[in-house]
Amino acid sequence: MTTTNRQQFASDNYAGTCPQAMHWFMEANASGHEPAYGDDRWTQKSTDMLRQLFDIDCDVYYVFNGTAANSLALASLCQSYHSVICSPVAHIETDECGGPEFFSNGSKLLVGENQSEAAKLGKLTPEAINTLVTKRSDIHYPRPKVVSITQATELGTVYSVDEVREISWMAKKHQLRLHMDGARFANAVAHLGCKPADITWKAGVDVLCFGGTKNGLPVGEAVVFFNKAMSEDFAYRVKQAGQLASKMRFISAPWVGLLEDDVWLKNAAHANAMAQRLSAGLQGLKGVQVLHAPQANGVFAQLPPALVQALYARGWKFYQFIAGGGCRFMCAWDTQPESVDALLADVKAELGL
Amino acid sequence: MTTTNRQQFASDNYAGTCPQAMHWFMEANASGHEPAYGDDRWTQKSTDMLRQLFDIDCDVYYVFNGTAANSLALASLCQSYHSVICSPVAHIETDECGGPEFFSNGSKLLVGENQSEAAKLGKLTPEAINTLVTKRSDIHYPRPKVVSITQATELGTVYSVDEVREISWMAKKHQLRLHMDGARFANAVAHLGCKPADITWKAGVDVLCFGGTKNGLPVGEAVVFFNKAMSEDFAYRVKQAGQLASKMRFISAPWVGLLEDDVWLKNAAHANAMAQRLSAGLQGLKGVQVLHAPQANGVFAQLPPALVQALYARGWKFYQFIAGGGCRFMCAWDTQPESVDALLADVKAELGL
Amino acid sequence: MTTTNRQQFASDNYAGTCPQAMHWFMEANASGHEPAYGDDRWTQKSTDMLRQLFDIDCDVYYVFNGTAANSLALASLCQSYHSVICSPVAHIETDECGGPEFFSNGSKLLVGENQSEAAKLGKLTPEAINTLVTKRSDIHYPRPKVVSITQATELGTVYSVDEVREISWMAKKHQLRLHMDGARFANAVAHLGCKPADITWKAGVDVLCFGGTKNGLPVGEAVVFFNKAMSEDFAYRVKQAGQLASKMRFISAPWVGLLEDDVWLKNAAHANAMAQRLSAGLQGLKGVQVLHAPQANGVFAQLPPALVQALYARGWKFYQFIAGGGCRFMCAWDTQPESVDALLADVKAELGL
Amino acid sequence: MTTTNRQQFASDNYAGTCPQAMHWFMEANASGHEPAYGDDRWTQKSTDMLRQLFDIDCDVYYVFNGTAANSLALASLCQSYHSVICSPVAHIETDECGGPEFFSNGSKLLVGENQSEAAKLGKLTPEAINTLVTKRSDIHYPRPKVVSITQATELGTVYSVDEVREISWMAKKHQLRLHMDGARFANAVAHLGCKPADITWKAGVDVLCFGGTKNGLPVGEAVVFFNKAMSEDFAYRVKQAGQLASKMRFISAPWVGLLEDDVWLKNAAHANAMAQRLSAGLQGLKGVQVLHAPQANGVFAQLPPALVQALYARGWKFYQFIAGGGCRFMCAWDTQPESVDALLADVKAELGL
Repeated sequence: MTTTNRQQFASDNYAGTCPQAMHWFMEANASGHEPAYGDDRWTQKSTDMLRQLFDIDCDVYYVFNGTAANSLALASLCQSYHSVICSPVAHIETDECGGPEFFSNGSKLLVGENQSEAAKLGKLTPEAINTLVTKRSDIHYPRPKVVSITQATELGTVYSVDEVREISWMAKKHQLRLHMDGARFANAVAHLGCKPADITWKAGVDVLCFGGTKNGLPVGEAVVFFNKAMSEDFAYRVKQAGQLASKMRFISAPWVGLLEDDVWLKNAAHANAMAQRLSAGLQGLKGVQVLHAPQANGVFAQLPPALVQALYARGWKFYQFIAGGGCRFMCAWDTQPESVDALLADVKAELGL
Repeated sequence: MTTTNRQQFASDNYAGTCPQAMHWFMEANASGHEPAYGDDRWTQKSTDMLRQLFDIDCDVYYVFNGTAANSLALASLCQSYHSVICSPVAHIETDECGGPEFFSNGSKLLVGENQSEAAKLGKLTPEAINTLVTKRSDIHYPRPKVVSITQATELGTVYSVDEVREISWMAKKHQLRLHMDGARFANAVAHLGCKPADITWKAGVDVLCFGGTKNGLPVGEAVVFFNKAMSEDFAYRVKQAGQLASKMRFISAPWVGLLEDDVWLKNAAHANAMAQRLSAGLQGLKGVQVLHAPQANGVFAQLPPALVQALYARGWKFYQFIAGGGCRFMCAWDTQPESVDALLADVKAELGL
Repeated sequence: MTTTNRQQFASDNYAGTCPQAMHWFMEANASGHEPAYGDDRWTQKSTDMLRQLFDIDCDVYYVFNGTAANSLALASLCQSYHSVICSPVAHIETDECGGPEFFSNGSKLLVGENQSEAAKLGKLTPEAINTLVTKRSDIHYPRPKVVSITQATELGTVYSVDEVREISWMAKKHQLRLHMDGARFANAVAHLGCKPADITWKAGVDVLCFGGTKNGLPVGEAVVFFNKAMSEDFAYRVKQAGQLASKMRFISAPWVGLLEDDVWLKNAAHANAMAQRLSAGLQGLKGVQVLHAPQANGVFAQLPPALVQALYARGWKFYQFIAGGGCRFMCAWDTQPESVDALLADVKAELGL
Repeated sequence: MTTTNRQQFASDNYAGTCPQAMHWFMEANASGHEPAYGDDRWTQKSTDMLRQLFDIDCDVYYVFNGTAANSLALASLCQSYHSVICSPVAHIETDECGGPEFFSNGSKLLVGENQSEAAKLGKLTPEAINTLVTKRSDIHYPRPKVVSITQATELGTVYSVDEVREISWMAKKHQLRLHMDGARFANAVAHLGCKPADITWKAGVDVLCFGGTKNGLPVGEAVVFFNKAMSEDFAYRVKQAGQLASKMRFISAPWVGLLEDDVWLKNAAHANAMAQRLSAGLQGLKGVQVLHAPQANGVFAQLPPALVQALYARGWKFYQFIAGGGCRFMCAWDTQPESVDALLADVKAELGL
């Protein structure tokens, strides 16, 4: 891998498979024939490791991607005539092509307000939840049943343990279940320095979709039910929805690589550090405004249009966010400091600094 | 891999990843960051190879497993109030936990009769199709819109080119679309010695689900639309249904390994040969009845109950078919002749031969 | 209405609205503006009457037709990856164009065997249930969750109280819920002479779809949940699925007409008596075979093809059943004895008797 | 009906059945047995009348209510991974408990901006459509396929012929289909004084849901496809979705009553006139602000909170709109001038005028 790969800031799913995941992928292949559909030793091993990691006897299911993880988890928490409360920038609302509605057969997403300071940081607030639940109670309005929060958020921020607890408190007050979209859960934990249990079940989360792909896996996410009553017959749901891998070991074994020796956390901490490095480098540059301090692995900044075009022309890839016109620079488990520095150098060169 | 792995006859999805697929999996990882969602060079390459293989400019989509491949393909061929005609032993009818009904939002499967000779070999017949289409035409009966055949069948038999053409003729006569579940398509082609085009689009097949997993991939199937009018917006369908891999290269690159140098065909031919070897060895053994000559990679045989139990006790794994009580021995791309011989030796030992 | 209306035997939904239902329909219109969506006095009144009729504090919902009643009830009893066990001639299997699969988003119907004596009378048996539940327990087979029986059956027969109890016993043994399709529930009660409670909740039925249309209503069925735990949020389900009448009084008030003075039972008893009259008249006629003694309001008989054609030529309308080639003559709340006699006279005339 | 029924302003679905609809309802019952499922003469007659009214050979289907009419029509215009563009106050977005998402199996509704003058009047604008279509074109965003407008709008305003044409132009530009929710279509036509064809197919509308219930029917709406290519197999869709009345005549015959002698238009004109009368009476009253001039049959006004409570205390029923805190007073086909005057008198009395 060249260190100045200019695609490194487009998305953390542009990154490849980390060595430890690759090791276990190959390991799982070494013995030839093995039981299918999860009755293999790697699936057992990674599941045990997840239970140990979360310090609870949770139910774990492996699915192929985040669309499926979140959509299936939500579908298991509500019926088609219920609704799911989320933030306006929630991935499930903006980037799943109606996946949650499809898997749930029609559950409507209700988006919280987007004017508060917290909302500007991509966070859902207890007040927004309360407003959506209490504004109506007639049957023409799909009954709120689930709250979904993304940890880390789509704007690269992280809910504190207290924030999750407050959301959970409000959710429980209204008999709502709490789902956590953890596509970048590792980055959140790395930022907070807490134990995984602290911002999940101990804070009231019922089910977590733990993202593996952005953290270094080739393919796969884990759906972790802390509330086991909610996972009844979930294996059937996974099967029917086309998310049961026949050669499951190739999905689960790489998880062993991530979980062993806290690779997942190290990968995330590295990506977060690269975002800090980039953010620090952008701070104070004339015409550049970092929109908010990065907490996870993404930097959101306002750049002069000419600079944006110039960077694209130099081959850099990054996304421009619809809302507000900011640019998003994502860092991954394998983003090189040299790449960050090269990007910064190009920015400065274009700005004539 | 030990040559006497006693799990080798349970299912061809107990097999691992073949070396060529593994090679390209690693190759795809070597360059670090690459575009996601299929905008990578391996996806382009494997797709081009599939178009070349089928000798037509087809539309190709990669999904994670067979449940999804078949269900999404069927959903794209009909609406919820239509029906799909298939054989009583069709995998989509018996082993998908309602997957086709889920993805199509309710399309009913109508099963053809199961008394004819062809039906006993797991095949759908033109007559059975005709009967189901013509028996009713009122709106209380879901209008037949699709015919689905499995090639090779679930009973290890293979439709001849003429048989596919006759089914296609009947389907077209009734304005039905033709879907081919090709979980073991490679084994069928290896048996027939024809070109892939001959039993697909040239014989009237609109869409093929080309199985990669059982043929040596770690994960993944290809949905191949020969009739491109039917794949309109299929990419959106794949996305919404949770079947779009973000790191697509890890799904598509292994296909390059299968397609290069006809590995897919060699893998299948080997599995077929192992089934022949096993079948030949079982022929004429007292109390053992091979139910029909194997054409693909599975042997179906009636064994004395005591023998079945004895083999299980010796550690052999194989399934007993619900209908008729027969035993199914599946062979895979990596089944060793020594394993076949060891199984046969155990059978003979138990029979006192 | 002329007494020799030759359409009277086609279907009991060819019949009109009975006078008592019509009376309350008009009564409900007399006062002008009234609360919508069921907050009116007729909905309250008919619901109270149904609770009294069933001698239990049940949950009652009014929907527009039988497809919706059965499909919504089934959807509330299971998830998409579950299955519903029913008889091969069950209306939900044969005549709903995939409605149950649509509303449940994919629940598969599993049909019981059809060779036993009971099956020939259109009944599901405890043995058939047991077979379907115990034959497999893997996740590729949609987990059985509901048993659905039709009372009276589609073949004009009636489950005895004991038969319902035995089915219920088997259902409960396997943790299955019990649904009763009561499109002709009134005819069953009229035949049995029991109390409505005896063949419903006292016999283990969880939810009944009580048919009003065939019994004399212009439109509408009642979904009656005896097990109130299963009707949680059912009002939302009804709303979302397009089954909530805004001017509900016009659906519910006619029920008052049916329930007052046991009109529902008298209507059913009359229809049953007409079926008896017709059956008695057909008995012993040369070439005519009454397939089984009618218990509800339909007569199923084998007639010589020439006779069938001759009756059609004379303007009589009746259906020929797919299975077995028998003819179905349905009687309704308003079938005239003179019509029965005219039909019998024409039969005899054609037979040269 | 007393002339001072204080429920008359809650909703136009609080109104009863108009005499002409009632007449035909009874007429349809007079002849006893008649063919079911729409093969009757009244269904033929009302359908012919609708074709004449719209001056085109359209496809007409009768369903039970507006939720179903709109949801089924939308489902026939798009697939689950497509999206429907509508206004933020569209009934399909705010008051159907997720019905459109349910029937379409997941189609997402995208709401247009709500800051323009037109938006404040409840109207969707061509610009809003253009913005939603052009902002993204990736597969993570459900592809826009349908535009839905409500005529008259939920805020009692009416799109002019030119406005419908401009929306249609923008829709066609982007290959979008155009659906009209006509729950109060009659009121719109009465206001515009145009021919029904002018604001439907001649202006580019593909399918209209023509509301009958609010216009004087007991139950039922008509789905009118001007673009017949889009109604292929719609009868099956209606059946599967539980919207096919077995005794169809009781749904269709009342339509004859509405269509004969332009009763539908007279009913609507009367309701509109009552809204004008009420609006005129409220104008200029101290503390009362009519939010915009009524064009259809609803008056939206801001009232002092104390006045609102006082009116409720006097027994008047009306809804308070969530957005903006305004009050909605709906008039119906049978709203009495005396009721309007009584309401105005109470308002003045409470204001001390």
